[in-house]
Amino acid sequence: MSKYDVDMGRRSANHVPLSPLSFLQRTASVYPERCAIRYGKKEWTWAETHVRCRALADALRRRGVEKNDTVAVLCHNTPPAVEVSFGVPMAGAVLNMINTRLDAEIVAFILDHGEARFFLVDQSFAEVATTALEIAEASPTVVFIEDDVLEPIESFGEITYEELIAEGDSSAEWTRPEEEWDAISLNYTSGTTGNPKGVVYHHRGAYLNAVSNALDWSLPQGPIYLWTLPLFHCNGWCFPWTIAAVAGTNVCVRGVDAGVIIDLIGREGVTHMCGAPIVINMVTTEAEKRGETLPHRVAMMTAGAAPPAAVLARAGRVGLDITHTYGLTECYGPNTICAWHPAWDELPPEEQARMKARQGVAYTLQEELTVRDPDTLELVPADGETIGEIMMRGNVLMKGYLKNPDTTAEAFGGGYFHTGDLAVMHPDGYVEIKDRSKDIIISGGENISSIEVESVLYCHPAVSAAAVVARPDDHWGETPCAFLELREGPEPTVQEIIDFCRDNMAHFKAPKTVVFGELPKTSTGKIQKFVLRERARAME
Amino acid sequence: MSKYDVDMGRRSANHVPLSPLSFLQRTASVYPERCAIRYGKKEWTWAETHVRCRALADALRRRGVEKNDTVAVLCHNTPPAVEVSFGVPMAGAVLNMINTRLDAEIVAFILDHGEARFFLVDQSFAEVATTALEIAEASPTVVFIEDDVLEPIESFGEITYEELIAEGDSSAEWTRPEEEWDAISLNYTSGTTGNPKGVVYHHRGAYLNAVSNALDWSLPQGPIYLWTLPLFHCNGWCFPWTIAAVAGTNVCVRGVDAGVIIDLIGREGVTHMCGAPIVINMVTTEAEKRGETLPHRVAMMTAGAAPPAAVLARAGRVGLDITHTYGLTECYGPNTICAWHPAWDELPPEEQARMKARQGVAYTLQEELTVRDPDTLELVPADGETIGEIMMRGNVLMKGYLKNPDTTAEAFGGGYFHTGDLAVMHPDGYVEIKDRSKDIIISGGENISSIEVESVLYCHPAVSAAAVVARPDDHWGETPCAFLELREGPEPTVQEIIDFCRDNMAHFKAPKTVVFGELPKTSTGKIQKFVLRERARAME
Repeated sequence: MSKYDVDMGRRSANHVPLSPLSFLQRTASVYPERCAIRYGKKEWTWAETHVRCRALADALRRRGVEKNDTVAVLCHNTPPAVEVSFGVPMAGAVLNMINTRLDAEIVAFILDHGEARFFLVDQSFAEVATTALEIAEASPTVVFIEDDVLEPIESFGEITYEELIAEGDSSAEWTRPEEEWDAISLNYTSGTTGNPKGVVYHHRGAYLNAVSNALDWSLPQGPIYLWTLPLFHCNGWCFPWTIAAVAGTNVCVRGVDAGVIIDLIGREGVTHMCGAPIVINMVTTEAEKRGETLPHRVAMMTAGAAPPAAVLARAGRVGLDITHTYGLTECYGPNTICAWHPAWDELPPEEQARMKARQGVAYTLQEELTVRDPDTLELVPADGETIGEIMMRGNVLMKGYLKNPDTTAEAFGGGYFHTGDLAVMHPDGYVEIKDRSKDIIISGGENISSIEVESVLYCHPAVSAAAVVARPDDHWGETPCAFLELREGPEPTVQEIIDFCRDNMAHFKAPKTVVFGELPKTSTGKIQKFVLRERARAME
Repeated sequence: MSKYDVDMGRRSANHVPLSPLSFLQRTASVYPERCAIRYGKKEWTWAETHVRCRALADALRRRGVEKNDTVAVLCHNTPPAVEVSFGVPMAGAVLNMINTRLDAEIVAFILDHGEARFFLVDQSFAEVATTALEIAEASPTVVFIEDDVLEPIESFGEITYEELIAEGDSSAEWTRPEEEWDAISLNYTSGTTGNPKGVVYHHRGAYLNAVSNALDWSLPQGPIYLWTLPLFHCNGWCFPWTIAAVAGTNVCVRGVDAGVIIDLIGREGVTHMCGAPIVINMVTTEAEKRGETLPHRVAMMTAGAAPPAAVLARAGRVGLDITHTYGLTECYGPNTICAWHPAWDELPPEEQARMKARQGVAYTLQEELTVRDPDTLELVPADGETIGEIMMRGNVLMKGYLKNPDTTAEAFGGGYFHTGDLAVMHPDGYVEIKDRSKDIIISGGENISSIEVESVLYCHPAVSAAAVVARPDDHWGETPCAFLELREGPEPTVQEIIDFCRDNMAHFKAPKTVVFGELPKTSTGKIQKFVLRERARAME
């Protein structure tokens, strides 16, 4: 044994399991009087939030919750959604935030699969929750989350959320994780086919991603953070823990409405927010409609589908500083960021947007982001052209899929997490997604990236949202089929749209079919391409 | 076994040992063209620095360095001091930066005790190194670090630093730590009596403290960091790793001279720097002498003895935004920070300085900072009056003392790291040091804090530096004895100084003896109180 290892083992004094729960304790101690949560006219300090979370943890334990029990929550971005992010794991339990747009069958599946012992339900989901509980075999203790901004409804469940908190002793010791590898939360993927998979997060990954959010976004101490991103989405990309780590303020809001967002930015002094590209679009369009810019510049982190150049440019003009990130449920939300180079500020706006639309590089506290041949696992050349699969290795990746060892082993096959996203590696080391495997359109043997076609469509002045999918074709195999939402104003013809595309990209990539109308979207604002693919197939 | 643990073990894909070496790799990949190190007219990009560090690592291995071998370095804050922070641990070796102010005997002791296999020596330390090697039993391979800003001297050792780097293959795989608990560096305490102790850092602690430096100091991406803090001091408080994590620029400088610092702040656009309070004093005094403020505000982190209120107020006026931190060699430098409350900006300047002079709260990525009774380990009441010992538990604490199991066990006794510093806990949870045990003056049975007396002395307009120690006294047991450095200008009388103290604090605390003259200081600018204590004892 080396001299550097003799009598130098871990001790309780110098090795404490990493957990984001520590951030709540620290901030409540250092900034007890600072506002932790603001919601309408109500607000809670960090000291009060700490007390409420500890009381919640103790109340759950008094009612029998034990380590590794699942506590499911169906709730909007209201204060309880922030509180459960701490209070549930402080009971040693695993937090399962459920997507609020799911129907009762899927909610029932999740309650059963996760073996929920408790089920906390916001009053606005009374109906779906009641139906789900009728379907489900699980019979969790139901907690009714009232909200006095809504019309009162008849209480359901065993106890209200406030009654539950009142049962707890906030001075009781809370349950620290025994190991940083212990589970902290369970997030179901919104799989487009089949049953959703339960992604399990560990305390270590939640801690590191919460900190990397701050580090990579240059988040200073004390930000005012607006909850435009659903908290059920990857635990709000770990931001409840990030905001605690930097002693910020959570501005809660029940629904994502562009007018409300703009008003809150002014009234609460919001400095930072996250959201899907659709939120950028909404806020930008609303500000343009009002004919004004935001009262001050706001940093906004977005992820998922690359925001089209045209949207990015307009967002910048109204006052949103967009940072583009990338991740999946399995990555705790974003663990990849389009890290900005100051030199890019000198590029023409279109070129800047092109740089920003790339997914980028690994978060500083993640490790390895690569693009590899899915079969051989060889790195693809960093030529910006060769398509491979994004694969990752690092500390900001899930523990595994719950009760799904085969899928877990497959996802981590060959020592990498396989994202299923197809991308190129640019010569500067930045990754750019070309498509989910299923989103590639193969026309006459040529691969067409639906994202590339969409980004051209977004440049058309009449287009407010665009989605391109494959339409089966006897001659070509597939052809691009564009579904478009239009702005108010004169409606273009189909031919005008097709000509516009042919003028701006290789002709074979231009859509052969164009359909105008509202696009189907998920609860997080993502366009549901699988619905459109079905429509396109039905056109045969 | 819980469902959350079945088939959910750590995998190479989702668990990578935390190491600050990852930051170099990432930043070299993301910002290859950005300046990593600037020194005089020379500069190196992050890509170049990465190449040089990897070549150094490979060269060391080719010459037989293995995991857990010690590589000692005696060097100013020049580029090699930054490079070895990565290149040495990338060889799997343990970096031992040696205090450049030590005499040959102590250097010899350190080479022997650390079992140095390599010894890298800046040419300005040729003499002390040569003498030390004559005394030492160890016979490390000596590497001569030339610097063409100096007059050339005759080469010594086996090889020059540049020749060594030229031997390495920068594309060779570097050695990642097998575990995050592996040793990364060895830092000897500057014990005032007896032999220094070898404090061993692990990769995990270095990683977390490097990140917490950024998080707690609100360090944005891309700072310009001036090396006014010796890199041999706790690995420069982990800042080589911090600056890599946030893709900043290291501005190297051979010596700490106030004029040079002010010039570099302007020329290089320095945004951040660290240093002992003496550096604040030097820069402030120089700026005042020039009759000008700094060209822009600079964030400066300081630690150790509390900066007196008068110094803090003057520093603020010339453009230094001081953040006060606290730590020991055993804590990787600072792991405690006087986190600032915006509301304190409204306090009168004296009151602000009094708040800022406190040591504060645990770093966000450290865990527990407490003040306890040294005997019972009970928490002292948070009354701002009861004195106890600062004790810590968390992830930013050493692995242990090298080849010193008894002292290690003692330091971690009862599950806490014992700092040896005596402090109070204020009602707001902030710690304030009252003294090292040996710095308390006991006069007539009353405890007198030497720091308190010093902070009054610093308010006297003629005083530029002050140190107060105990002088043995037949009647009182001990009395306070003040050693003072004076500013240029009319010299006060001893009686004037004593009267000034009596006017500003309890009479029994005022010094009975006052001595004018230069104060003895350590290499890091700390006043050597043990020398003054001896002088005071000799007055008997």
